[in-house]
Amino acid sequence: MRYPSYLLQLIESLKKLPGVGSKSAERFAFELMRWPKEATQLLGSCIATLPEKICYCQQCGALAEQPLCSICIAPQRNAKQLCIVASCRDLFALESTGEYRGLYHVLGALLSPLDGIGTEQLPLLAIKERIAKDAVQEIILALDATLEGDATALYLKQALQEELQVKISRLACGLPMGSSFDYVDGGTLAIALNARSHF
Amino acid sequence: MRYPSYLLQLIESLKKLPGVGSKSAERFAFELMRWPKEATQLLGSCIATLPEKICYCQQCGALAEQPLCSICIAPQRNAKQLCIVASCRDLFALESTGEYRGLYHVLGALLSPLDGIGTEQLPLLAIKERIAKDAVQEIILALDATLEGDATALYLKQALQEELQVKISRLACGLPMGSSFDYVDGGTLAIALNARSHF
Repeated sequence: MRYPSYLLQLIESLKKLPGVGSKSAERFAFELMRWPKEATQLLGSCIATLPEKICYCQQCGALAEQPLCSICIAPQRNAKQLCIVASCRDLFALESTGEYRGLYHVLGALLSPLDGIGTEQLPLLAIKERIAKDAVQEIILALDATLEGDATALYLKQALQEELQVKISRLACGLPMGSSFDYVDGGTLAIALNARSHF
Repeated sequence: MRYPSYLLQLIESLKKLPGVGSKSAERFAFELMRWPKEATQLLGSCIATLPEKICYCQQCGALAEQPLCSICIAPQRNAKQLCIVASCRDLFALESTGEYRGLYHVLGALLSPLDGIGTEQLPLLAIKERIAKDAVQEIILALDATLEGDATALYLKQALQEELQVKISRLACGLPMGSSFDYVDGGTLAIALNARSHF
């Protein structure tokens, strides 16, 4: 006996979510069948109408509900600082720290030749225009500490410093907060040692 | 800056799935935003229309696409054997072994007084009727090896053996296939030792 076809279709769709395999997808599907009708329909319509509701800020590329996002229109944010992030998720992660009061620009992707993402996909022109328009004084490259993040940071640094007199910084690398030596890899330890600060 | 409201609603809904916390729900939501429009809408409509499509077999309670499920109407299945399972998922798990050729009856729940599930919620009458109608010779209790499964098995054994002359068996407990001693708990080891078989 195989699953009914509507269940198979649902399981196949759920399997496309990140980190969800056959077992998890089946678990989700059977759980969904136990939900009250209203909850199932709410989730279903949330997902189905998502493509129509997504809207990006015309200035920074962040998720927005209006043409400009709530950060770009906030008068108290410091337009002289521009933080460059890879994705909207990274932006929200930084925002949740509550430490940064400047503006953002979302790249949308990191350089990754293997995935076909080259320098022409980065919104370099838009960033340069923003720097000129807002007289930005500092660019903060808040990119992953991965090969792709490093490559993108290097490229942006060269492309921006060539023409514009702007201070460029990158997030610090080192031991994550609360980490014990046992669980920290050698590369991170080496970076933390080289970047040690006076204590 | 907070997530747009449509995203918050989606994340809240996704968090109700089993084993999905805030982080996973966010990951799912952001992944869904990157899907092609057709894939998002397919998943959304699969979930939203699920309540209307669910249909249970009138005889055994398994998922069905017709009034009777494909197992109940299969002429080659042995109606003298009746396997009692807690849920449709358990039924599919047993079916996928390909070892069982009898019929099933789905309980829908296991006894669990803490969750308000008492003996009156078990379909005892329907099972008794089926035993009488089909002249069932063997009942196989294929229930979880948990407290709830044990309680349900004991209750069913007493309730069925009182009135009906029927052989009742329960799935064997012991070492899972391919398991090493290191990862097997003491309770399982004790059961496996007591139920050892001639080799």
